Amino acid sequence: MTGMKRASEKNLLLFTGRGHPTLAQEVAQYLGTTIVPTSAYEFANSELYVRYEESVRGCDAFVFQSHAAPINDWIMEQLIMIDALKRASAKRITAVMPYYGYSRQDKKHRGREPISARLIASMFKAAGADRIITVDLHADQLQGFFDGPMDHLLAMPVLADYVKDHYDSTALTMVSPDAGRIKVAERWAARLGDAPLAFIHKTRRTDRPNEVVANRVVGDVRDRVCVLTDDIIDTGGTIVKAAEALAEDGAAAVVIAATHAVLSDPAVDRLKNCPATEVIVTNTLPSALEISMDKLTVLTIAPLLGEAVRAVFEDGSVTSLFDGSR
Amino acid sequence: MTGMKRASEKNLLLFTGRGHPTLAQEVAQYLGTTIVPTSAYEFANSELYVRYEESVRGCDAFVFQSHAAPINDWIMEQLIMIDALKRASAKRITAVMPYYGYSRQDKKHRGREPISARLIASMFKAAGADRIITVDLHADQLQGFFDGPMDHLLAMPVLADYVKDHYDSTALTMVSPDAGRIKVAERWAARLGDAPLAFIHKTRRTDRPNEVVANRVVGDVRDRVCVLTDDIIDTGGTIVKAAEALAEDGAAAVVIAATHAVLSDPAVDRLKNCPATEVIVTNTLPSALEISMDKLTVLTIAPLLGEAVRAVFEDGSVTSLFDGSR
Amino acid sequence: MTGMKRASEKNLLLFTGRGHPTLAQEVAQYLGTTIVPTSAYEFANSELYVRYEESVRGCDAFVFQSHAAPINDWIMEQLIMIDALKRASAKRITAVMPYYGYSRQDKKHRGREPISARLIASMFKAAGADRIITVDLHADQLQGFFDGPMDHLLAMPVLADYVKDHYDSTALTMVSPDAGRIKVAERWAARLGDAPLAFIHKTRRTDRPNEVVANRVVGDVRDRVCVLTDDIIDTGGTIVKAAEALAEDGAAAVVIAATHAVLSDPAVDRLKNCPATEVIVTNTLPSALEISMDKLTVLTIAPLLGEAVRAVFEDGSVTSLFDGSR
Amino acid sequence: MTGMKRASEKNLLLFTGRGHPTLAQEVAQYLGTTIVPTSAYEFANSELYVRYEESVRGCDAFVFQSHAAPINDWIMEQLIMIDALKRASAKRITAVMPYYGYSRQDKKHRGREPISARLIASMFKAAGADRIITVDLHADQLQGFFDGPMDHLLAMPVLADYVKDHYDSTALTMVSPDAGRIKVAERWAARLGDAPLAFIHKTRRTDRPNEVVANRVVGDVRDRVCVLTDDIIDTGGTIVKAAEALAEDGAAAVVIAATHAVLSDPAVDRLKNCPATEVIVTNTLPSALEISMDKLTVLTIAPLLGEAVRAVFEDGSVTSLFDGSR
Amino acid sequence: MTGMKRASEKNLLLFTGRGHPTLAQEVAQYLGTTIVPTSAYEFANSELYVRYEESVRGCDAFVFQSHAAPINDWIMEQLIMIDALKRASAKRITAVMPYYGYSRQDKKHRGREPISARLIASMFKAAGADRIITVDLHADQLQGFFDGPMDHLLAMPVLADYVKDHYDSTALTMVSPDAGRIKVAERWAARLGDAPLAFIHKTRRTDRPNEVVANRVVGDVRDRVCVLTDDIIDTGGTIVKAAEALAEDGAAAVVIAATHAVLSDPAVDRLKNCPATEVIVTNTLPSALEISMDKLTVLTIAPLLGEAVRAVFEDGSVTSLFDGSR
Amino acid sequence: MTGMKRASEKNLLLFTGRGHPTLAQEVAQYLGTTIVPTSAYEFANSELYVRYEESVRGCDAFVFQSHAAPINDWIMEQLIMIDALKRASAKRITAVMPYYGYSRQDKKHRGREPISARLIASMFKAAGADRIITVDLHADQLQGFFDGPMDHLLAMPVLADYVKDHYDSTALTMVSPDAGRIKVAERWAARLGDAPLAFIHKTRRTDRPNEVVANRVVGDVRDRVCVLTDDIIDTGGTIVKAAEALAEDGAAAVVIAATHAVLSDPAVDRLKNCPATEVIVTNTLPSALEISMDKLTVLTIAPLLGEAVRAVFEDGSVTSLFDGSR
Repeated sequence: MTGMKRASEKNLLLFTGRGHPTLAQEVAQYLGTTIVPTSAYEFANSELYVRYEESVRGCDAFVFQSHAAPINDWIMEQLIMIDALKRASAKRITAVMPYYGYSRQDKKHRGREPISARLIASMFKAAGADRIITVDLHADQLQGFFDGPMDHLLAMPVLADYVKDHYDSTALTMVSPDAGRIKVAERWAARLGDAPLAFIHKTRRTDRPNEVVANRVVGDVRDRVCVLTDDIIDTGGTIVKAAEALAEDGAAAVVIAATHAVLSDPAVDRLKNCPATEVIVTNTLPSALEISMDKLTVLTIAPLLGEAVRAVFEDGSVTSLFDGSR
Repeated sequence: MTGMKRASEKNLLLFTGRGHPTLAQEVAQYLGTTIVPTSAYEFANSELYVRYEESVRGCDAFVFQSHAAPINDWIMEQLIMIDALKRASAKRITAVMPYYGYSRQDKKHRGREPISARLIASMFKAAGADRIITVDLHADQLQGFFDGPMDHLLAMPVLADYVKDHYDSTALTMVSPDAGRIKVAERWAARLGDAPLAFIHKTRRTDRPNEVVANRVVGDVRDRVCVLTDDIIDTGGTIVKAAEALAEDGAAAVVIAATHAVLSDPAVDRLKNCPATEVIVTNTLPSALEISMDKLTVLTIAPLLGEAVRAVFEDGSVTSLFDGSR
Repeated sequence: MTGMKRASEKNLLLFTGRGHPTLAQEVAQYLGTTIVPTSAYEFANSELYVRYEESVRGCDAFVFQSHAAPINDWIMEQLIMIDALKRASAKRITAVMPYYGYSRQDKKHRGREPISARLIASMFKAAGADRIITVDLHADQLQGFFDGPMDHLLAMPVLADYVKDHYDSTALTMVSPDAGRIKVAERWAARLGDAPLAFIHKTRRTDRPNEVVANRVVGDVRDRVCVLTDDIIDTGGTIVKAAEALAEDGAAAVVIAATHAVLSDPAVDRLKNCPATEVIVTNTLPSALEISMDKLTVLTIAPLLGEAVRAVFEDGSVTSLFDGSR
Repeated sequence: MTGMKRASEKNLLLFTGRGHPTLAQEVAQYLGTTIVPTSAYEFANSELYVRYEESVRGCDAFVFQSHAAPINDWIMEQLIMIDALKRASAKRITAVMPYYGYSRQDKKHRGREPISARLIASMFKAAGADRIITVDLHADQLQGFFDGPMDHLLAMPVLADYVKDHYDSTALTMVSPDAGRIKVAERWAARLGDAPLAFIHKTRRTDRPNEVVANRVVGDVRDRVCVLTDDIIDTGGTIVKAAEALAEDGAAAVVIAATHAVLSDPAVDRLKNCPATEVIVTNTLPSALEISMDKLTVLTIAPLLGEAVRAVFEDGSVTSLFDGSR
Repeated sequence: MTGMKRASEKNLLLFTGRGHPTLAQEVAQYLGTTIVPTSAYEFANSELYVRYEESVRGCDAFVFQSHAAPINDWIMEQLIMIDALKRASAKRITAVMPYYGYSRQDKKHRGREPISARLIASMFKAAGADRIITVDLHADQLQGFFDGPMDHLLAMPVLADYVKDHYDSTALTMVSPDAGRIKVAERWAARLGDAPLAFIHKTRRTDRPNEVVANRVVGDVRDRVCVLTDDIIDTGGTIVKAAEALAEDGAAAVVIAATHAVLSDPAVDRLKNCPATEVIVTNTLPSALEISMDKLTVLTIAPLLGEAVRAVFEDGSVTSLFDGSR
Repeated sequence: MTGMKRASEKNLLLFTGRGHPTLAQEVAQYLGTTIVPTSAYEFANSELYVRYEESVRGCDAFVFQSHAAPINDWIMEQLIMIDALKRASAKRITAVMPYYGYSRQDKKHRGREPISARLIASMFKAAGADRIITVDLHADQLQGFFDGPMDHLLAMPVLADYVKDHYDSTALTMVSPDAGRIKVAERWAARLGDAPLAFIHKTRRTDRPNEVVANRVVGDVRDRVCVLTDDIIDTGGTIVKAAEALAEDGAAAVVIAATHAVLSDPAVDRLKNCPATEVIVTNTLPSALEISMDKLTVLTIAPLLGEAVRAVFEDGSVTSLFDGSR
């Protein structure tokens, strides 16, 4: 008989870039394994270098990187890590990006703009990523930017369950800080027992998205505990202005809840000084772990990511992980 | 001297499938030209056949097809037309799809669903389309599904200007029939002089998107002329329920305005019997032209498409065409 | 030791579109398994929707669809099913198309025509099909249209063995209804003990392939039992005219045998009224199962497909399945 | 005003490999131009080297190469020439292959065979060819192997018109040497005033296609001037055996006509000694020009190629060139 | 007559990222035009944003960016600029990268390393770049990393001619600081009238390329004016050690000449304190323009780039630009 | 439970073209298996044909071919073998090319040249090769030409260890015959205990690389045993001239060592008559095994290839195989 036969074996290996190694390690611990030792540093001229210290041939690779600032460095590092895995014969490569960089540049607002979120997807494809795992995309449509499986996990149930446990549901009103994000508030409302909805009507300048012109509350918020929800808190301008408008309109209390704590300057100062009494976020990004603010609550998504990795590796269903309240 | 030289020339040719030829002819007339004569028919077993009656070698081709029902036939016909153009050496092929089929299936609501809107983009790419011209996408992010230029035209200014001319702007409130579409209403509001906003808060069943459970108006509509806006009117269930809720909440009048008049059964009956006094749509689809309903107003987008085609052909800017009120 | 290891496992899952579910179920039964439960329906505007009811992650998927009329709907449904499998992380996707739609549009007869059969192959590739299983292609060269493995099964042995069992081989003459299909008749002849050959010489109009001008029998058919063979019976015009020509030239009897019973109108009437005494087809398409005609014999190809699926799943050889009499 | 403008110009350049430069030069002369001077030679280890002696930037390049023996060298040379043109910024590259190598390996006759004709198409695509011009493909379906425009020219009218001018049409019978090629004979018959048809029924061994087992004439040939037609004469075994069978069956005369004179050993001897009185071929390959045989007539296809090149360059229609008698 | 015709026109537009705008402006001035006005800035979370202020439809775009530190930002900016051009219908996009980032990571020195220089090429391809213009690649083979035209310009003649004009050629010895770069020194030697050669033999640590172990001069340098040549001066370690070795071995003088002045810390200090009397570089990178060092001479390559852009735009030959002394 | 499950199994199969079957068989023997029986021959017109005699479905295929002369035939044969494997459903295809053809054409020396080494990589990708195993590339950068894993094995340790065992290391000087190959000599020097280095400084004509103009030894070679190293010996001109220059400069002895013994005419005569006392090569190519020359020593690389194949099949690390002295 010609040839040689062997039983096949699958081998899960976890890798992490330097953007948010704490989260990757937490996931590894959750799964009862460790991260593959990796050399990674910058050359003097700011070029990145990566090399794995152990054989990766034939492995089922999961490469973690949160696209925190300096975002272009961490995206490039993850791409380089994937290139190295491809050339070292990894069998399957999953890019795990708890926060998907450039996800807000997902369409042309005006002519002659890029669609950078699609560029990112194309670049991960070109580098060799077979699939993507990510959390709470800015728009669900980004799933269609990648021509392969993208597991889109929802952190909202983690946040919403915390709210349910700590606040009286019957007193809650879900508020969207923006006309474009009410769908998210609606999902929260459904999970929290059909709470009423409201939103802030404002006009942005199209060229500089952070400069808001006016804020008008649409819906009833007087004497309600308002939960302001968003996917991302970046500089905090929008959500803090919304909190102020709610306070002015007679809200009993304001709680802020968001998945991705980008927290660029001057978000921390703004949040500290705003009427919100609690700010609830997750650890998809390292920022929230690095600051000190009494009213800040950071929830971990490591178990969510860990279950997703396990399901992908073992060919189990992850539908239950992102099918929460929908 | 080796070789032969000639001045280059560009040659615009217009083609249309059988989905909505009237619109293509109107565009041709606007541009002062005619449609290329084309044989197109079905074989007995329902396979389609297409052949052009004139040479198309080297042309700048614009292939019109509205994705009306029977939608799969018209999509396939447009793909086959593009394949024939590619193989007959057209220089550049633009697929003009005033209504982009499957555009509502733009994300996975739940696990194990397709993203059919991305599949459509990939199929046009595979067939040989170099670019796409379309009108009022269900989500702007669909621009990123196609890996090439996509000119996304806005019909909203056409509709909004009609409303401005026929109604008293100070009496208007813009209403979104759905928490996910308030952004569209907000754009209308901006164009109509910062009209106030409202929306209908409802819960859909995830498996059968047409069956709505409850409708609650968020925002003030009493004694206002409410303009209910959406991109698509399909069976009309959502928008008609919204109109009824507005009437119940004391609206002075309800006007419906939408770009794409899909008008599947029983939309016409529903619209006729609903409290709305006027229903304003465009001719991106043939349906509105084929029915009889007194309160229906159909505005043409042929000039918009014609200007876009001209700009693409002449390398002019189309930004002004889709940059309306933003 | 870094990482987690597991033994690999292969998991065969069968899926079927709505074009011809009976055949898929028959194959599933042959293999001792069942079809994966699937939601599939049309929206009001004729867009299709598909969702799988069970996890498909990591599976070896076989997606059945016969390209019967309405052919564009069933092709699109199969493409959408493949897209959903790709995005849900199926490991390998095989499109099973017992009848390959548009297979007769496999070349440009004249300028400015599409090659739709190639377009179909490119679309299945773009959607995510890794391989194709099909039966009796109109031209063997279609195998080269798909850039991957295509298992081309032959139903001819099933048909020919039936003829051998029911007719006296020494009295048979194999007849091709068309100069372009004599190769098929020649293969039959070889399998039936080197029976003599004949064919019908006719001229088609190039623009409307169904309108034949003249029929002349080339070869001796007087007093012979003539077996008229073809791959497809569509409207039946060609083969029925051939049967009449054979009867006129003194054939003792005429038997029609073909793999794909498309049977578009008015095929059934024509066959009923023609001189042929038996019409033998397979169940690659649902049509034959839905009509009533005494002289019709329908043979099943489910075991052939079942063996092919099993061989693909278990990495066995399928050469024996398509290597019959060659 | 930003930028610099210039009128566009098209620049046709002709190139030829060393497989059949005479034909390319004849085409150049027909068009009133010359071939671009090119260095091309073999290194000592049989690697090929190519470099152009003039600038090719921005040109509309036509690269001629007939795939004569040593066929792999000439295919590789043409691929290398295309790579050099791509890297030197040619604007459009057309591979002109009057004889398309490996065209007979266009399907899997048995399992575990390549489809080399598709591989050739894929390799020209990968190297950078935008389009292909070829003559009389072995099967029309090969057009679908290339994912771009392929101009398929027909030499048959050239051959058939010669026959019409030199023989009495009413005495002619068109004969196919093979059941699979009767379609070609049928096209001839149509052009020559509906001449009667016949063919040779034989069985080939599947593993060594040149060894024929038996020959039986189907159709009437007695006292007729038989024109044996084929696309290719390779070793001549098939066609010479057919000529002998016709002579034995009482043909008045036998004339052989074929497009591609491959003429591998021992074709010339066989043809010299066979009953055919004239052998008519074209100069798609250099072989016919290099041998001496009284009854050989070589017709040139340079004007056909020249007109096709001109039409491609000037965006004219070539349909008339390949639409002859169909 | 169907359709509309127009004469074609080419429209050159120049764009620049923020990595080294001075050089792009100098090129624009050389060509008598200006850079297209562009908005480009960083969001608070370090994501980049780009938008063009004028129509770019149909243009022949040249996008300048030198890959200086912070290198990942400037690479990403150039990719985003290309994406925006592609989506805004630029006709052809040329990425001009006077210094090609990551060019030294052009192979796997050891297992499990990336080939980042190839990744860069793949990413520019994926973003939409049709061609690349670059200067003095670290290895000529990088031309093959990009699957399209790459114009590789040589700055060496600019540097060498300066040396010829300022030093006595007969006294010169060309020295390579590294066994791997002698080929470059050999080209210099040829241009400077067959000057003698020498090189420094040293051993690098494979894991940290900057730490040299030993330096031994191979070749005669006593009493010679030694011109130390390299393509890149990064931290300067290698070349400064080489200069010291030459001084110790009795060189009459040491002159350093290199194309790309990366000049990462502590290059400037090292160069100031080393025995070299003159350091000659070009302005492919902004660094040299930003420091103060008496013995530094900076030559401009703007005319070289300007001529290349002009030749690409006008389809002229650029061979003369990179064919200097070879 | 829906579906059928089976344990996965891997199945290694070895294949060889006709370029150098002895080496493949030696590797098979080393691994304790045999080559898959394969039909392969030339048709009369020099087209190649290949078919496998056993099922290959699902196998892990390794296809051996050394790119010896006639190089284009053997490259095409390997491509055709890969196409047949792809279409027969091999799971993974590794092209093993101990000598990578056209590897010296890895850049454009002048304008309008091809980069044939990249074309080769693109062609293997297009045909269906998933990975490449090769030995001692002419330039390490060629690894980046292939967009997938390329295992680059080093034969140098095999050669160097032989030298270490047969010569007194302290007497050795490593000599490069060419300024561009000193890096190789430097690696040898490191492995042989930091032996001194020298090289030959010469000028090649750019258009015909074999014609050398002048030879000057740089470095001390008097009374040393000089080991002249190169990757390839083709016609032997360069290395033999180098050997003569070393002898003239007073070398005690000259030994030649190279990996790839192309040995095109008149290499054997030149080597026989040159001052070198031993010529050490490997069996990557069949040439060295076919000639008779007393001073020739041929070392086998079969164990190296065997270990690499085993590591790839078993997902072991091959780093140790190519990480020798670096």
